Amino acid sequence: MEDIKVRFGKKVRELRLLKEISQEKLAELADLDRTYIPGIESGKRNVSITVMEKLSIALEVNLSDLLKNL
Amino acid sequence: MEDIKVRFGKKVRELRLLKEISQEKLAELADLDRTYIPGIESGKRNVSITVMEKLSIALEVNLSDLLKNL
Repeated sequence: MEDIKVRFGKKVRELRLLKEISQEKLAELADLDRTYIPGIESGKRNVSITVMEKLSIALEVNLSDLLKNL
Repeated sequence: MEDIKVRFGKKVRELRLLKEISQEKLAELADLDRTYIPGIESGKRNVSITVMEKLSIALEVNLSDLLKNL
């Protein structure tokens, strides 16, 4: 099975594209540095729970949906 | 609303007690340093996704269940 960071990154990307927003826009909505999102989506970042919460709010999904089927 | 780290810590504790295992046993099962679990359960640790995966395996729940209703 793929590394959890890679699987999570793909999920964030999937949800972002569903919302039709750019990585920059997601960073802005999630109050994260804009260079952070490419690192998450490419599976390089070991995301913390506080960052996950920011992403779930920005993507308008609850936290557990962010990790569903990973 | 309580800080996400505190809410997560309470969830880990709840699941651990349901399994009737000690913090030391959870640390062993999750391949984490035994001093790490008290910090998580008291909401002091900003847990990463890789640690979450280890906890979900040790607690025998899937990742999204670990964050359900947080």
